[in-house]
Amino acid sequence: MGEEEAVGRVRFGVLGCADIVRKVARAIGMAKGATIHALGSRSLEKAKAFAADNNFPTQTKLYGSYAEVLDDADVDVVYIPLPTTLHLEWAVKAAQKKKHVLLEKPPALTVEDMDKMIESFDRHGVQLMDGTMWVHHPRTARMAELLNNPQLFGNLKEVHSIFSYAASHEFLEKNIRSRPDLDALGAQGDIGWYCCRAILWANDYQMPQNVRAMPAPIFNAAGVIMSCGATFMWEVGRLATYHASFLSHATTNLTVQGTRGTLHVEDFCIPFEETNASFKFISDMKPKPLFLGWENRPDEHKVIAEVPQEVAMIEELSRIVKNIRDGEGKIDPFWPSITRKTQVLVNAVMESIHSNFDIVNIT
Amino acid sequence: MGEEEAVGRVRFGVLGCADIVRKVARAIGMAKGATIHALGSRSLEKAKAFAADNNFPTQTKLYGSYAEVLDDADVDVVYIPLPTTLHLEWAVKAAQKKKHVLLEKPPALTVEDMDKMIESFDRHGVQLMDGTMWVHHPRTARMAELLNNPQLFGNLKEVHSIFSYAASHEFLEKNIRSRPDLDALGAQGDIGWYCCRAILWANDYQMPQNVRAMPAPIFNAAGVIMSCGATFMWEVGRLATYHASFLSHATTNLTVQGTRGTLHVEDFCIPFEETNASFKFISDMKPKPLFLGWENRPDEHKVIAEVPQEVAMIEELSRIVKNIRDGEGKIDPFWPSITRKTQVLVNAVMESIHSNFDIVNIT
Repeated sequence: MGEEEAVGRVRFGVLGCADIVRKVARAIGMAKGATIHALGSRSLEKAKAFAADNNFPTQTKLYGSYAEVLDDADVDVVYIPLPTTLHLEWAVKAAQKKKHVLLEKPPALTVEDMDKMIESFDRHGVQLMDGTMWVHHPRTARMAELLNNPQLFGNLKEVHSIFSYAASHEFLEKNIRSRPDLDALGAQGDIGWYCCRAILWANDYQMPQNVRAMPAPIFNAAGVIMSCGATFMWEVGRLATYHASFLSHATTNLTVQGTRGTLHVEDFCIPFEETNASFKFISDMKPKPLFLGWENRPDEHKVIAEVPQEVAMIEELSRIVKNIRDGEGKIDPFWPSITRKTQVLVNAVMESIHSNFDIVNIT
Repeated sequence: MGEEEAVGRVRFGVLGCADIVRKVARAIGMAKGATIHALGSRSLEKAKAFAADNNFPTQTKLYGSYAEVLDDADVDVVYIPLPTTLHLEWAVKAAQKKKHVLLEKPPALTVEDMDKMIESFDRHGVQLMDGTMWVHHPRTARMAELLNNPQLFGNLKEVHSIFSYAASHEFLEKNIRSRPDLDALGAQGDIGWYCCRAILWANDYQMPQNVRAMPAPIFNAAGVIMSCGATFMWEVGRLATYHASFLSHATTNLTVQGTRGTLHVEDFCIPFEETNASFKFISDMKPKPLFLGWENRPDEHKVIAEVPQEVAMIEELSRIVKNIRDGEGKIDPFWPSITRKTQVLVNAVMESIHSNFDIVNIT
């Protein structure tokens, strides 16, 4: 690339060497208009080793602290993949330094913490985007088109999502996502997050009126949730359910039913293949005479992704940030708004679980 | 066919001219070892017209009452497709005449009624089978083999089922399934039945310890349930959910998750095609490095059905009845046992709905 093009790119600074950084750093490297500028770890040696192991650009600034990344005047966006417990502190510090923020999910442990972050982002004119990748896949847009087609889909009635993976015994006791001091929302924050987002997405981000957690959630010895679910309710008889678990074999289903059609996708969060994805949709399924079978069956819709979904995410964030930097653009309020809505649902389920599975009103 | 073969066949007598009789009469006609012997309707003219319209054998005895079918000494099995409210009366009358019974689902409005029928069947040495067809499909047996393979599936953790169809406004107010005087269990008895059976089937018919109905069921103006769901719980952290609705587009999904595998079938109740059915199964789904996709994806398993599932049902019942008639066989207790278990679950959900969605213990 030319020097000029490189100079124009949006520069990402990364806090820490979490596993997910390997995937996101690769995406930043592949994304048009983005570049990795800095990596900070609690030890400079760790940052150096991680950068070398993961083919970071040789010019990447390597720091022995997170604070130095925020102090680097050339950093446009700070990527925060730290344990959730640390998000509030570092997101607010990044905002205070006028850095835009790419925040791993779950963004916060509580809605109160989320709102403190958002208040800080708003005050400092900073863009927030959370790290939910699948909403950036072109398949997601294609599915939304069908759900928004009243002839083919009718009115939305139900959304059902299942997300699970069978974690190892070690994971269930020691992984960050299983530790009350690091990611206290456990499976609900990790994978319940995706189900709640999918439910919101299918509802065109209209919030439900209330939620009731499913009975019999499972906690690990440290009291962190390993398996749970909920039913969300909207007025006018719309409903959604999900179940998320670290204890069942990998399953990532999303089914959306309207009055006239049904959508089903088996790999909604991470497509089986990076460049080819598919989903099933059927409109007006008709029984054969005597109900001996069905006249039609779900069509498989194939969608080509020009770039992996996480690259699309980085490109979208970089586009917004570049326009702001160039004085031509504004904060896009859509991204923080869906982040907050998802956080509200995630925590409403927890509230229901902790109040004997009562119905919790969502305000 | 030879006269001798025809004489040896198990002879079915049908009570009434419900729509479903057309499908089951066709199945009796196709099944090895079975024949339609009699049809009774409240009017002889209606019986004659129905038999002519549906190509019943010309020698079929046509009666202007249900009682005459029971009084026909040549009838071996009485098929009862009447509205559920009438099941107890006619099933007990059939048993008193020593007729074996094929009973449409839901078999009863309450477990108490179910138990009165079973008591009568037991006293008179009569075989009961309910009209749930899909359990007789060879696909079902093939799926059960995989679920029972601990290497491929591990331990059962979750079952999730969705069953819906978007009924017309007229259906929702006037159809038998929507009327409190005829089928007071509404959508729960009609399609919730299939979900409860599927959940039991996946659990090898082990009953859950308790159930909680999902919030926000929907009733029609007459107070009959049009949409509902529930969560069933087993000790050792096993769970099942379902949702059944007359208000959403046709969807018949079943997903079963173990610790090592996931099964998914989209047409579990009525296969898309009569002779070819399929399902998806995956064991040990592995992410690609960096979670850029998945190394493997669900395999589609195809199963050829020699005969439609309802024909397999009639053949199984006829085989049992013929053996009893010939003095070589006994009642098969499996069929009434799963009928009763399904009825218990269907009514436990109703009990939870009517007791403010409390958890109901299943005894």
